[in-house]
Amino acid sequence: MNENPQPPTPPVRPATRRPGGRSARVRGAVHQAVTDLLAERGYGTFAVAEVAARAGVADSSIYRRWGSLESLLMDVVVSRLTEHSPMPDTGSLAGDLRAFAAKAAADVSGADGLALLRTVVTVLTAGPSGEAARDRFLGARSEQLQGMLDRARARGEEAPDVLDVLDVVLAPMYIRVLFGVGPLTPDYVDGLIDRLLAR
Amino acid sequence: MNENPQPPTPPVRPATRRPGGRSARVRGAVHQAVTDLLAERGYGTFAVAEVAARAGVADSSIYRRWGSLESLLMDVVVSRLTEHSPMPDTGSLAGDLRAFAAKAAADVSGADGLALLRTVVTVLTAGPSGEAARDRFLGARSEQLQGMLDRARARGEEAPDVLDVLDVVLAPMYIRVLFGVGPLTPDYVDGLIDRLLAR
Repeated sequence: MNENPQPPTPPVRPATRRPGGRSARVRGAVHQAVTDLLAERGYGTFAVAEVAARAGVADSSIYRRWGSLESLLMDVVVSRLTEHSPMPDTGSLAGDLRAFAAKAAADVSGADGLALLRTVVTVLTAGPSGEAARDRFLGARSEQLQGMLDRARARGEEAPDVLDVLDVVLAPMYIRVLFGVGPLTPDYVDGLIDRLLAR
Repeated sequence: MNENPQPPTPPVRPATRRPGGRSARVRGAVHQAVTDLLAERGYGTFAVAEVAARAGVADSSIYRRWGSLESLLMDVVVSRLTEHSPMPDTGSLAGDLRAFAAKAAADVSGADGLALLRTVVTVLTAGPSGEAARDRFLGARSEQLQGMLDRARARGEEAPDVLDVLDVVLAPMYIRVLFGVGPLTPDYVDGLIDRLLAR
């Protein structure tokens, strides 16, 4: 095994990857800068220039790509609550829901969980731009959840609706974090899934 | 009937009522000004001077009584979500919970419901002053609810915990309003109570 020598150079990446690669790096650096600023100082305490300086990009790169600070914040929080929570696929609805809920709890707990949720609420409730953000956030979240629930139904399991998951699992976790009511312990989170499945 | 002439002057109010009466009027006018400004323009768009002008009181009256705009906002939102929702006493737990939930839904629906909830979240999550507000808000809310649940237990009914009511009834309503997911219809709100009582 492994007798063939490594090729002298890594294979050339397809040309189409390059812009995506650079673009993805800029996006990652800018998102990280926003996440750090939100955690350290909170919503409403920084401007595009500060994000750009921290991310090592030009202000104009941010304006060209996101248009405004609000729009950038929206992108960051929607990404944090969707891309970073890929849907589990454990083979059973209960397993999927427990893994999903544990990840969702972790996302809003810890050092910057409150800052994140606070920003979500601020951005999602900000008039017309908030409506667009709500549609995007809920659209992304619903689509992921719907896929999980559809897989369960395809296996012959009875599955709740997406809005039941919002009402029974996500809403209590979000409100407990926002209102500062105790930590989201594994037992607590499992209890929410029990309540969802007890139908 | 009604043959006695009206007394020439209304009865003199006890002296102790006067300061309370004036104080309550100032409080009412200031609270109304804040509520209107929140509904019309939203959180973070006005200063104490504007509240004072609208309420017809001096800036110094507001600073003397509330200390800061944040503290005033806290007082308004806590009052709106507690004093304006007196606990029903219908004689049965289910009846009490349904009346309570309908009132709570009405409080956060309508023209300024979103502005109110948005302010609650902003104020309650604002660092150390937010912690004090959370304690006050949750304390007031819990005490009211606890009384209702204790009455049910005294009648021999099995009653949920205060935090169950938060998780199952209030959290979904608050999150649906914040995320803009459909109206809180009477059927929806009744369904939350059904879920709470199905144990």
